[in-house]
Amino acid sequence: MTYSVAIAGASGYAGGELLRLLAEHPHFDVRTVTAHSNAGQPLVAVQPHLRGYTHLTLKDTTVDNLAGHDVVFLALPHGASGAIADQLPADTLVVDCGADHRLESEADWDAFYGGEFHGAWTYGVPELPRLTGTQRDRLAKTRRIAAPGCNASTVALSLAPGIRAGVIEATDLVSVLAVGPSGAGKAAKTHLLASEILGSANPYAVGGTHRHTPEIEQSLRWAGGAEPTISFTPVIVPMSRGILATSTARIVPGTSAAAVREAWEDAYAGETFVQLLPEGQFPRTADVLGANTALIGLAVDEHAGRVVVVAAVDNLVKGTAGAAIQSTNLALGLAESTGLPVNGVAP
Amino acid sequence: MTYSVAIAGASGYAGGELLRLLAEHPHFDVRTVTAHSNAGQPLVAVQPHLRGYTHLTLKDTTVDNLAGHDVVFLALPHGASGAIADQLPADTLVVDCGADHRLESEADWDAFYGGEFHGAWTYGVPELPRLTGTQRDRLAKTRRIAAPGCNASTVALSLAPGIRAGVIEATDLVSVLAVGPSGAGKAAKTHLLASEILGSANPYAVGGTHRHTPEIEQSLRWAGGAEPTISFTPVIVPMSRGILATSTARIVPGTSAAAVREAWEDAYAGETFVQLLPEGQFPRTADVLGANTALIGLAVDEHAGRVVVVAAVDNLVKGTAGAAIQSTNLALGLAESTGLPVNGVAP
Amino acid sequence: MTYSVAIAGASGYAGGELLRLLAEHPHFDVRTVTAHSNAGQPLVAVQPHLRGYTHLTLKDTTVDNLAGHDVVFLALPHGASGAIADQLPADTLVVDCGADHRLESEADWDAFYGGEFHGAWTYGVPELPRLTGTQRDRLAKTRRIAAPGCNASTVALSLAPGIRAGVIEATDLVSVLAVGPSGAGKAAKTHLLASEILGSANPYAVGGTHRHTPEIEQSLRWAGGAEPTISFTPVIVPMSRGILATSTARIVPGTSAAAVREAWEDAYAGETFVQLLPEGQFPRTADVLGANTALIGLAVDEHAGRVVVVAAVDNLVKGTAGAAIQSTNLALGLAESTGLPVNGVAP
Amino acid sequence: MTYSVAIAGASGYAGGELLRLLAEHPHFDVRTVTAHSNAGQPLVAVQPHLRGYTHLTLKDTTVDNLAGHDVVFLALPHGASGAIADQLPADTLVVDCGADHRLESEADWDAFYGGEFHGAWTYGVPELPRLTGTQRDRLAKTRRIAAPGCNASTVALSLAPGIRAGVIEATDLVSVLAVGPSGAGKAAKTHLLASEILGSANPYAVGGTHRHTPEIEQSLRWAGGAEPTISFTPVIVPMSRGILATSTARIVPGTSAAAVREAWEDAYAGETFVQLLPEGQFPRTADVLGANTALIGLAVDEHAGRVVVVAAVDNLVKGTAGAAIQSTNLALGLAESTGLPVNGVAP
Repeated sequence: MTYSVAIAGASGYAGGELLRLLAEHPHFDVRTVTAHSNAGQPLVAVQPHLRGYTHLTLKDTTVDNLAGHDVVFLALPHGASGAIADQLPADTLVVDCGADHRLESEADWDAFYGGEFHGAWTYGVPELPRLTGTQRDRLAKTRRIAAPGCNASTVALSLAPGIRAGVIEATDLVSVLAVGPSGAGKAAKTHLLASEILGSANPYAVGGTHRHTPEIEQSLRWAGGAEPTISFTPVIVPMSRGILATSTARIVPGTSAAAVREAWEDAYAGETFVQLLPEGQFPRTADVLGANTALIGLAVDEHAGRVVVVAAVDNLVKGTAGAAIQSTNLALGLAESTGLPVNGVAP
Repeated sequence: MTYSVAIAGASGYAGGELLRLLAEHPHFDVRTVTAHSNAGQPLVAVQPHLRGYTHLTLKDTTVDNLAGHDVVFLALPHGASGAIADQLPADTLVVDCGADHRLESEADWDAFYGGEFHGAWTYGVPELPRLTGTQRDRLAKTRRIAAPGCNASTVALSLAPGIRAGVIEATDLVSVLAVGPSGAGKAAKTHLLASEILGSANPYAVGGTHRHTPEIEQSLRWAGGAEPTISFTPVIVPMSRGILATSTARIVPGTSAAAVREAWEDAYAGETFVQLLPEGQFPRTADVLGANTALIGLAVDEHAGRVVVVAAVDNLVKGTAGAAIQSTNLALGLAESTGLPVNGVAP
Repeated sequence: MTYSVAIAGASGYAGGELLRLLAEHPHFDVRTVTAHSNAGQPLVAVQPHLRGYTHLTLKDTTVDNLAGHDVVFLALPHGASGAIADQLPADTLVVDCGADHRLESEADWDAFYGGEFHGAWTYGVPELPRLTGTQRDRLAKTRRIAAPGCNASTVALSLAPGIRAGVIEATDLVSVLAVGPSGAGKAAKTHLLASEILGSANPYAVGGTHRHTPEIEQSLRWAGGAEPTISFTPVIVPMSRGILATSTARIVPGTSAAAVREAWEDAYAGETFVQLLPEGQFPRTADVLGANTALIGLAVDEHAGRVVVVAAVDNLVKGTAGAAIQSTNLALGLAESTGLPVNGVAP
Repeated sequence: MTYSVAIAGASGYAGGELLRLLAEHPHFDVRTVTAHSNAGQPLVAVQPHLRGYTHLTLKDTTVDNLAGHDVVFLALPHGASGAIADQLPADTLVVDCGADHRLESEADWDAFYGGEFHGAWTYGVPELPRLTGTQRDRLAKTRRIAAPGCNASTVALSLAPGIRAGVIEATDLVSVLAVGPSGAGKAAKTHLLASEILGSANPYAVGGTHRHTPEIEQSLRWAGGAEPTISFTPVIVPMSRGILATSTARIVPGTSAAAVREAWEDAYAGETFVQLLPEGQFPRTADVLGANTALIGLAVDEHAGRVVVVAAVDNLVKGTAGAAIQSTNLALGLAESTGLPVNGVAP
């Protein structure tokens, strides 16, 4: 079975990564790629690393160009996908890699994004522990998927197991992330110039203002956190892609170190793409570069009374395009891991 | 007035940085440089960036070679400086850039380092707020200075103001650092190879095991923290030098955001080398590269109930060699900022 | 059909890349991995990015452990593969990723490597233009393949088309390469530390001393160069992998710019993995990261009287492991491109 | 004696570097800084690493704001400084860090830049060997200085000694440069984004089209080259600043290796800021980061018949701002090295 695919926003980083991954997928055929200012150009002129797509030309991002495919991936700036999605047929599988359909709370949307609220679609992080089961259970046969924010899903996967198991407190969470600049997209901005980022660590959205904050807390509520609160700080470091999230939480008094570890072991036992490393081992982002894998290391700091969870994710793969394809596999009834790499490109 | 200077460990990164900074200092004359395996070589063969020192040759690191100078800087691996220091004359100003003389608690030394305990010297972070006054008050006329751990001093400068002022709680502190690999020294180790670090973020010493942890808590006790506890995680990122420390602390209930900010403003008003940035601004490590400056940005996250303090420091300057020279200036009665750069090398 | 595979030197960078690529290959089953000091460890403890190989443990590198497989890849330091290879059965397909079997001239071997000379195997760069045909013609059914040096094959692919066509002179060639440090291997050496390479460009083997020089000239002789001479300088730059080779050659007087370009067009027309970019376009190493693709851009500088050829290759893929697998496909009669990625991992 | 200084274009990279260096200069007082879109802002808001200049505010770039200072540095885009310079008093020392006053040939200007031709000022590379003497001889008392192009001066310093001495041919020169992106300035452009440059080597202006080409050839003519021709290719690599130029030239037949080396030794004997390294040693860009030093390594490749000259320069210091200040020192009769660092910031 081959599904026809269209990708809107194929000139950007998320769109490019969808194309790279889909090239290795046995059941998808990318027929249409669209863009905004680059429409009319050969795809490979804009994405020179995608040498396998010399036959494709970028078209305009219109409903007409996107309709008529089995699957449509939207890799557009936030605010741009809602209107288009509304006009696509209900039986088309639409996957939004932007933020427009992630948040359930209109108040959160207004506070952190603004503009028209389009409501939440099925959230595309299959392994995410929920109070019962996982997010995977909701993805079968859905026709509307919201791919996650890369930082948000990394942090949620890091902390949800402990909240669900009741071994950590859901308040007073702290997460600091080293992230590559590709998460900020391909638009030319001075603070994203190589000269500004090479040799430097640059924080941004400090103090609770980052848009992924409500998305994290939404996921943690699904895991059973009554009123989760997290201090969340991303720091851009000089690597093109990758997220290394260091998250800490207060251990519920009286919980043993073994019980803490067990919560994460239980959550991810048998998972292909989310792996808990053995005690004393911690992941590097290079270990997951280009792969759909989230690696998690965990330590119990008894002196500080906190668990420390270190998670490594490729923001463009497991954080975006890989999560989107994995969720699409589920929605279509394909084997969940079809076409997705588990080995990283290192060194 | 010119003081004669000897540097032990001049072939390493800290030794090299002392030399670079001392070249611009009007009152010091470096007469002797020593090393271990590189003894006998021209300094510039080992430190090819120090083109102003073509007249110096590395000697063996012996008491004989070091004695007879006004100031001796020890830039040696931990465990190596204690025995040498014991044999230097009491009126020689000795500055230890290693760890041997930082900790007051022998129990902490045993737990985190081990080997013979040599006791604490005057700690070389002049601006560090103490319950009354600053660490500066203790540095005048001292003849034994312990230069700080780079990570430890960065975190202590970040959090001590709030603890002293009573606006943040001293327990449940969390600090995550993006650090360059030069802090780990020049010894050839596989995990420090460029291939392992380029394009990757690599955590280490996760879960409360890093040796700078007791040094941080010691500084915070000086600031008035009864029993400070900190979860401290460093992450190596692909920049040769620099520390970006993101530290968070619970705000004491009932404290206004303005009162929180005021604690840091009070602590660093009038300081040349520790500067609090205006509200909404946060530092990058490039801003302090090569400079003796610590830049601090602060945000109050009311939702999370935490203050977030972001500090940028060059680990080899303000974190080590610059702190050492600044403290030496004080001990000798020179103007504190003599010979120390305040502007960073950016981009 | 599935071929059983053993990899010697699976703990190094070339060995790791073979494993990463073979994981996506439909006809190979890696059964044995061997190492030296890491023997006895789980593979994934040494290669933490290879999450798909949690079932493999490193064995000692012995003939016994390697024999009995259909294909044996040797990814060993130079000088180490010759003796092992001699003892493997003649009908086993042996692929040497080291230097021991590349050079036909014992004098060259003695001058640039030294130690026992083992003679040349079939050189594993299928697309390499020869005076008649390509190197591909020699690979069918061979049971001994010498995978190329990464720098050598990149430069040879850059210049051989022009030499074969007689449009450039084979003497007075100049090639300068920006290369990532992974080409230098995983052994811990001070000059390969991240601190030494981050933020810096470091030349090495300047002045005609690099061991890939005779290998380049050998390839250019195959293309018809009577006595090729090349000035070849590699420069390590801060990217973990990748080669960007800028090669220039004097244009034979009287040759038109169109005729020059035509030589490269002819050489690589129809090739999947070696692509000449359209006029005015030049490749970046990011475009081929992780891919088995060599991208070539070409300009005629009429003022200087030289052609400038810029080639981008991933040193670990098209430069080593990918070339090895591509050649293996040919030797076994499989479709040449089986299991090899053509799209790069960018950004 | 203190000279008053104005800097036009103080918000850019060259302007920022002038400010950083001038802060350590004993005879200059920067009174006025100007910018275009950033006028009205505190300097430190735009250049956050220049913590020593919190007292300065950016003004508009107008003749009125610039006039009335002893020295005016123009760090403006090409085409912008000519008109302003024409209106400044003849006895003001004006130093143009842009390209407008470098080229003597109007035909070269038209071919590589275009727009109004303003004629050449005294070229600001003091150590540059000329057929008799050095460029230094022309700088005393001049009131109009053209600071060099960073790539151009690096290549000219690399090759001029051999041309002047008649030991290398002036035709068929080849130079390939690894350069940091800061040389391309601070304007936001997609191809200069960190995501595009991290982990990648990116060539540009391939095939003789780079604007520094005629500037190099002009310098080589001054050294005695009748009709120099150079193939010149810059490659952007992931370091914020630095140039590593690998230049090769055919050795005049019959010249001994010793005679070749002697040409460079003679040219730079006694120079503080241009140093020839001992035989077998080659520079890294980290060795000159932040310093006004050009380091040169030289090898004679007898097999290839070429000399290989590797030069390392910080594009913003010796390549631009340092050269400008060094030349200014000469023009004002100050000691040439005043206020300029010779030691690099490494690692």
